[in-house]
Amino acid sequence: MCGIVGIVSSEPVNQQIYDSLLLLQHRGQDSTGIATSEDNQFHMVKAKGQVREAYRTRDMRQLLGNVGLGHVRYATHGSAGSEEEAQPFYVNAPYGIILVHNGNLTNTRELTAELYNVDRRHLNTHSDTELLLNVLANELQSGISGLSLDADQVFDAVGRLHERVEGSYAAIALIAGHGLLAFRDPFGIRPLVLGRRELPGGSGEEWIVASESLVLESGGYEVVRDVEPGEAVLISPDGWMYSRQCAAEPRLVPCAFEYIYLARPDSVMNGISVYDARLRLGNALAEQIIAEAPTGDIDVVMPIPDSARPSAMQVAQKLGIEYREGFFKNRYVGRTFIMPGQAVRKKTVRQKLNAMSTEFRGKNVLIVDDSIVRGTTSREIVEMARSAGAASVTFASAAPPVLYPHVYGINMPTRRELIAHGRSLDDVAEEIGADRLVYQTVEAMDRAILEGQDRVTELEKSCFTGEYIAGRVDEEYLAWVEATQES
Amino acid sequence: MCGIVGIVSSEPVNQQIYDSLLLLQHRGQDSTGIATSEDNQFHMVKAKGQVREAYRTRDMRQLLGNVGLGHVRYATHGSAGSEEEAQPFYVNAPYGIILVHNGNLTNTRELTAELYNVDRRHLNTHSDTELLLNVLANELQSGISGLSLDADQVFDAVGRLHERVEGSYAAIALIAGHGLLAFRDPFGIRPLVLGRRELPGGSGEEWIVASESLVLESGGYEVVRDVEPGEAVLISPDGWMYSRQCAAEPRLVPCAFEYIYLARPDSVMNGISVYDARLRLGNALAEQIIAEAPTGDIDVVMPIPDSARPSAMQVAQKLGIEYREGFFKNRYVGRTFIMPGQAVRKKTVRQKLNAMSTEFRGKNVLIVDDSIVRGTTSREIVEMARSAGAASVTFASAAPPVLYPHVYGINMPTRRELIAHGRSLDDVAEEIGADRLVYQTVEAMDRAILEGQDRVTELEKSCFTGEYIAGRVDEEYLAWVEATQES
Amino acid sequence: MCGIVGIVSSEPVNQQIYDSLLLLQHRGQDSTGIATSEDNQFHMVKAKGQVREAYRTRDMRQLLGNVGLGHVRYATHGSAGSEEEAQPFYVNAPYGIILVHNGNLTNTRELTAELYNVDRRHLNTHSDTELLLNVLANELQSGISGLSLDADQVFDAVGRLHERVEGSYAAIALIAGHGLLAFRDPFGIRPLVLGRRELPGGSGEEWIVASESLVLESGGYEVVRDVEPGEAVLISPDGWMYSRQCAAEPRLVPCAFEYIYLARPDSVMNGISVYDARLRLGNALAEQIIAEAPTGDIDVVMPIPDSARPSAMQVAQKLGIEYREGFFKNRYVGRTFIMPGQAVRKKTVRQKLNAMSTEFRGKNVLIVDDSIVRGTTSREIVEMARSAGAASVTFASAAPPVLYPHVYGINMPTRRELIAHGRSLDDVAEEIGADRLVYQTVEAMDRAILEGQDRVTELEKSCFTGEYIAGRVDEEYLAWVEATQES
Amino acid sequence: MCGIVGIVSSEPVNQQIYDSLLLLQHRGQDSTGIATSEDNQFHMVKAKGQVREAYRTRDMRQLLGNVGLGHVRYATHGSAGSEEEAQPFYVNAPYGIILVHNGNLTNTRELTAELYNVDRRHLNTHSDTELLLNVLANELQSGISGLSLDADQVFDAVGRLHERVEGSYAAIALIAGHGLLAFRDPFGIRPLVLGRRELPGGSGEEWIVASESLVLESGGYEVVRDVEPGEAVLISPDGWMYSRQCAAEPRLVPCAFEYIYLARPDSVMNGISVYDARLRLGNALAEQIIAEAPTGDIDVVMPIPDSARPSAMQVAQKLGIEYREGFFKNRYVGRTFIMPGQAVRKKTVRQKLNAMSTEFRGKNVLIVDDSIVRGTTSREIVEMARSAGAASVTFASAAPPVLYPHVYGINMPTRRELIAHGRSLDDVAEEIGADRLVYQTVEAMDRAILEGQDRVTELEKSCFTGEYIAGRVDEEYLAWVEATQES
Repeated sequence: MCGIVGIVSSEPVNQQIYDSLLLLQHRGQDSTGIATSEDNQFHMVKAKGQVREAYRTRDMRQLLGNVGLGHVRYATHGSAGSEEEAQPFYVNAPYGIILVHNGNLTNTRELTAELYNVDRRHLNTHSDTELLLNVLANELQSGISGLSLDADQVFDAVGRLHERVEGSYAAIALIAGHGLLAFRDPFGIRPLVLGRRELPGGSGEEWIVASESLVLESGGYEVVRDVEPGEAVLISPDGWMYSRQCAAEPRLVPCAFEYIYLARPDSVMNGISVYDARLRLGNALAEQIIAEAPTGDIDVVMPIPDSARPSAMQVAQKLGIEYREGFFKNRYVGRTFIMPGQAVRKKTVRQKLNAMSTEFRGKNVLIVDDSIVRGTTSREIVEMARSAGAASVTFASAAPPVLYPHVYGINMPTRRELIAHGRSLDDVAEEIGADRLVYQTVEAMDRAILEGQDRVTELEKSCFTGEYIAGRVDEEYLAWVEATQES
Repeated sequence: MCGIVGIVSSEPVNQQIYDSLLLLQHRGQDSTGIATSEDNQFHMVKAKGQVREAYRTRDMRQLLGNVGLGHVRYATHGSAGSEEEAQPFYVNAPYGIILVHNGNLTNTRELTAELYNVDRRHLNTHSDTELLLNVLANELQSGISGLSLDADQVFDAVGRLHERVEGSYAAIALIAGHGLLAFRDPFGIRPLVLGRRELPGGSGEEWIVASESLVLESGGYEVVRDVEPGEAVLISPDGWMYSRQCAAEPRLVPCAFEYIYLARPDSVMNGISVYDARLRLGNALAEQIIAEAPTGDIDVVMPIPDSARPSAMQVAQKLGIEYREGFFKNRYVGRTFIMPGQAVRKKTVRQKLNAMSTEFRGKNVLIVDDSIVRGTTSREIVEMARSAGAASVTFASAAPPVLYPHVYGINMPTRRELIAHGRSLDDVAEEIGADRLVYQTVEAMDRAILEGQDRVTELEKSCFTGEYIAGRVDEEYLAWVEATQES
Repeated sequence: MCGIVGIVSSEPVNQQIYDSLLLLQHRGQDSTGIATSEDNQFHMVKAKGQVREAYRTRDMRQLLGNVGLGHVRYATHGSAGSEEEAQPFYVNAPYGIILVHNGNLTNTRELTAELYNVDRRHLNTHSDTELLLNVLANELQSGISGLSLDADQVFDAVGRLHERVEGSYAAIALIAGHGLLAFRDPFGIRPLVLGRRELPGGSGEEWIVASESLVLESGGYEVVRDVEPGEAVLISPDGWMYSRQCAAEPRLVPCAFEYIYLARPDSVMNGISVYDARLRLGNALAEQIIAEAPTGDIDVVMPIPDSARPSAMQVAQKLGIEYREGFFKNRYVGRTFIMPGQAVRKKTVRQKLNAMSTEFRGKNVLIVDDSIVRGTTSREIVEMARSAGAASVTFASAAPPVLYPHVYGINMPTRRELIAHGRSLDDVAEEIGADRLVYQTVEAMDRAILEGQDRVTELEKSCFTGEYIAGRVDEEYLAWVEATQES
Repeated sequence: MCGIVGIVSSEPVNQQIYDSLLLLQHRGQDSTGIATSEDNQFHMVKAKGQVREAYRTRDMRQLLGNVGLGHVRYATHGSAGSEEEAQPFYVNAPYGIILVHNGNLTNTRELTAELYNVDRRHLNTHSDTELLLNVLANELQSGISGLSLDADQVFDAVGRLHERVEGSYAAIALIAGHGLLAFRDPFGIRPLVLGRRELPGGSGEEWIVASESLVLESGGYEVVRDVEPGEAVLISPDGWMYSRQCAAEPRLVPCAFEYIYLARPDSVMNGISVYDARLRLGNALAEQIIAEAPTGDIDVVMPIPDSARPSAMQVAQKLGIEYREGFFKNRYVGRTFIMPGQAVRKKTVRQKLNAMSTEFRGKNVLIVDDSIVRGTTSREIVEMARSAGAASVTFASAAPPVLYPHVYGINMPTRRELIAHGRSLDDVAEEIGADRLVYQTVEAMDRAILEGQDRVTELEKSCFTGEYIAGRVDEEYLAWVEATQES
């Protein structure tokens, strides 16, 4: 899970990229990077941590140029500390290309071997972004015939890339002297949206591509449209926009988890408002609760802030039960220092959430969360509610049971760590200590997210169903991924 | 506005102080400092910015010792950049004293002159904390008769300090070799709470004093009690606790603003739950709305997150109108870099809040905020609501009109910057662009906060009434303060 | 002027490269970089300033691997502040190559155009090292036929590089998975020496290439030989050494300035001991002094420390005049800070040298320096001698008059800044304020440096003669270089 | 061993103090600090390492004011890493005082107890400078009678300080609002010199006190005189200079080691030129060599650079043997990094010195060093000479045998580590591997340093004789010091 943004303007883009990354910060807080292009020279700064801490004035002063891109990264298993895997990545031939990427490639083993043996390209990290960049570079190189590079040659290269690469990818690249290229995998699993604004004072116009539409809204851009699955968009340094469908059989299957908890509620993705989807997930969950569990004794409905709030509000409304906010979220999360001779403290949910006893004392509470993955957080939440005086705790998940690994760009544990994997509903309820437990169904989730539009007809929901749409994801692959993660 | 914490333990306190400061981070984000005492040696680290960014592992490793204190600072007008004013402060005679302070002294001009001319003490900054520390040092020095220092001598010194110092102050000090001293001004304007816990494994016990009770709860401490107005508490390095009332006429008059928006809702201050107070402020505000404004056409009630949420929920419930969350708060706030040759961007509320059009389109909305100070934020919020499609906007403030400067430790603008100063209700409504505007009354606020207990009978509410309880705060003083702020 | 080192070992090389760079620090103090290769992964750290300040423990811990290289850089005109031009440079195709370089290319304009237009390689800086690396990369790429890369393919690529590149270059490169490549331009203008040692404890052997032989001696390496002009040496990761002459007509013409002042005296270059060469330059200079100037009244001979010391000692001995050290060199050089509202101080020679009046008072002194370039330092030295009480000052230069720019890797001013350019001997003497002035002759310099061996028969001495051996260096080129420098 | 400087000017002093510290850098490279006084506000920056690396532009910009002082520190045993012991030190009562100190107090145990028990002053470190400052503060405080502080009160306080403090100390202090105070212990063991200059452009005058006179010369100051033993000098912020003898029985006994190797040769201390003293030490050593050792076979005399150069030159001249520089000193010294899993390398003299074989091969060499302390360096030097081909090695020390600890401010090992302690001349020669060994005698050293003037009649030379002039330094004390050092 990452956030990406790219801008082509007629004025410097560094502050605008910085501001955009702040708005995408919820998509990744482990590292961040910005690159800009000034004439034919690239400038790049990468750093660990959040955007606010990462960039100093001297970094920003170095990031000159009217074309640029940025990245926030959620490090996957075991690589949080690796600065070398921070994005963007750069290759200097052909042309000089800088790329950022949101998603996850699944045929990394095959690509690594090909690039090394056939294309003789050096991969200095284990990052699949470096793979993606080198495939792009290689396809651009092999497509050069005459002297100049035109949009069609670039789109042809993206087309060949689609054939070689499997998995999910929304990517933005700078090609030295040729502008900004953005493209999305043929299933459109990860989001990417295109925007445009007139600069204040009539000083020109500016194009933007970003992971989420709220970046556009907040920056005063008009949302032009989502980049299509398989499509590539090329914006020249002087602001000409070209686009082409580069995939043979594109098919829009966006990731359900963006709607469930990943994206900001004020974003619209593939024509579906995230906030509205969460409201509808709440409505559907309410129906499920009515169907499955007696609600007569429930006094209050409570969300786990912040992502479950819209769903919880609808659950309360549908059930006609009072909505209350009993959990307070601590915004400031710190570190645990390793002191010589001192025991290391355990991080707990209590450092992130606090229960207001006024709201719990003596009440039968219905707690709504967006989803249940490992179950450890849910267990601590139930404990907190009981400590705060709850008479009984019903737990409801706005997402269906998570049963399989997510291989398309969300860092999710192996099957044996998933609490719902191989457990009955009652077993899970017992594990988390709840009196009752209600899950959304897969069908209800589908309906809730897709309702009211016809552009998206199916969702990437493999972690609920085990059906993987992109690339070869079979038992051998999952076993390999899990072995890697657990090592 | 600042947050303070002090701990006396039988094991190292650095991580616990760090964790506590994170929980107090909402009280100040401009700078932070930690000091510890290891036998007779002090260790101190101060840095700009938030707790998470401020301390490195090497800093923490240096902060050895079982006694310590910490501070988070909200810089007042014009001093945000001044690292030299970061707390804690240190003097080396008598004994070696390190002090942190939450509050604001009002007779700084007199104290400065006395310390310089009579006590020959050097003040290296304009910080009133340095003044407070030097008065304490001076009174401790002048009270030394025999060889040793006992608790009564310390309490006598705090008594003399109360006579010299005017304004608000909750303070914690380390006295080398003699433990931790905590005291609160004779009006108890700023909060301070005392706690205690058994260490895990029976390895001893630990005392804590902190600005807010949630620090105690979150750390597993038992809340012993609030430090009383005028009282001093001394905890020896080996864990003996002494306390004494040191003021001639103590009188509990806590700051109303702690309940309105400053404190975390999950804190209890002077026996009053902040969360409950905010719920009651909502109830009272609802009554005011019913009395003053026709509510028949209002479709939804919406809070400005996060502090107005409890009040808004009650307003909705009392009015029987649906409660919705239409504003989304962006958690990640960045900087505006000054680039040579580029115009500086204006910071706007839009970088902090976003309006979800689903909730606004075509609706008559009642927006509830905790208070209205300058009015600039309110104006932008109303604009955002209208841009998002609101049919009409009613604005309600859970606090009464702010008419006078706050001189007891909250950074508030001069009178001419206060939107309600010298304006009628209708004028203010027009200024912020609202169709209707409702304020809480002072009497209703008093009742709402004080209801259900009899320990606190009056509140510090000078910014609403112009009546200042502590020290000489007259027109000459206010004019001086305002002149200083505006220079 | 730069210093380079590369090592292939059977144990980690980071500390050894660091130690080697310290020994090459006199060749450049503006920036430094180290890169290592761990299996197929490169690690790289670059920083401004001297080696001692540049590397932190965490940098060194990252520089894993048994193969590596390092660089110290003397920034040329106008680029001191540019971190982006710090070496090493990296390209990821073919194979992944990292390169460091000592020297200066003269056909940069042609190479830049070719790489951009024909090879489609992106150059992100104005560094000629990036050019050199990309030419190497391109020639390696174009030479790949089958699957594997062997030594002959590498040597062929270096051969083609020699044909494309003009100027001076001693270079070391890491080729991912294929070891370390070192090569020297066909004239051997800049130095490069090859060494080898058994590791302590019989744990294997280690190869080293470095700019100067004292790095080898100090590290306990056996000096194998100088890398020949035009030759390339390839050392595989497991320690096999291959070498081949890659130039069509190699011809050893090393830079005279290495012997005059650049190299450390305890180095041996191309079979000539730098220290011995300086002694012989002193002998020859003494003869010149006898021939040109009456020495009967001279009381003492004094060197400008440190590089003129050996020559001065011989001058004293040959003339039979007492040798004294009247100048003391300050080793600690600082910065001049720009303070708002304060005038900037002028840097003077007095901050680097101090004259001991005991040695000057009333004496006729003969001051020996290694060379005279701009003349500003000489003028200040003569003034210092007079202020310290010298009765008369004779100034002697161990090098001939510097009349032309140095285009092969030593940063030297434009013609109009060279004090000897267009001035008679008497004019120069008057300019620097000396009573008498004696220069070495070009012929005597040649004899002195080359004496006692027959391996080197000619020296690169264009700055004395205006005859440039490598590449097209004509009036147009010099005018372009000077225009660039003065802008 | 430390270096100190203080300046009172009519313009900002930060850059001038920085430049002065660079010139004193040879006196200490472990940490450095600068403090300035701007009206009544102090600014202070302290950092580890050398001056050049320690101060950033933002530090310098903070150091405002026309009065200031600076320090470079040579950390004593075991405290190199302690940033908390870096100077200057500050106390805020009375007045606010900042102090720097060169020297070492010997009655630290008594002073610590007194300050704690009687004066109730907190000492936060084990630094004797903090002791000295607190004694000064205490005596200033106890001497205050009326309202104002005048020069006599300050001088009375220094007088009382002289009575309480034992050991060596040259100190400079800023007293807030009252200017700069400099004083020297009653034996004048450590140096301190007073200077003055007119500022360029007639913009006022500037006073300076510094450890060495070259700081004055290099900055264009007129040397007014040495501060006398026991004397105090007070310079008001507006440039008035007051001075008084504050000791009962002052007696000038400067440290012999300043002349032997500590000070820069271009300094004059107590009327004795350091350079001339070293020349005379060489003359005397030559006589000793003639008397003790057959010199007929010696081919060359060689110095260990840099401090032994003047003496060696005179030895050569007196003996009529050729003077050669066979050792080259490496100026760039680095660190040894601790790498996980790698063995730590041993630091050797070879990293600092290199022997030029040209000068050694087949020759009988006489090596002159300034002194022999532990003997480990001498042993490595003799080995290097033999490896470089020396036929025989005679070693001569310009100082007498070091037999006792130095307790007045030079970090010297315990008796058992001193190679000459308890060993005969032959034993020492054998230990260091020399064929012959010659030491200066104590009497000859005395004569050589004191010759040609009558102001200084005796030297502090306890490390040669065991006779300690200042304070109680007996067997109990030495045993305590040694126990502390070895722990």
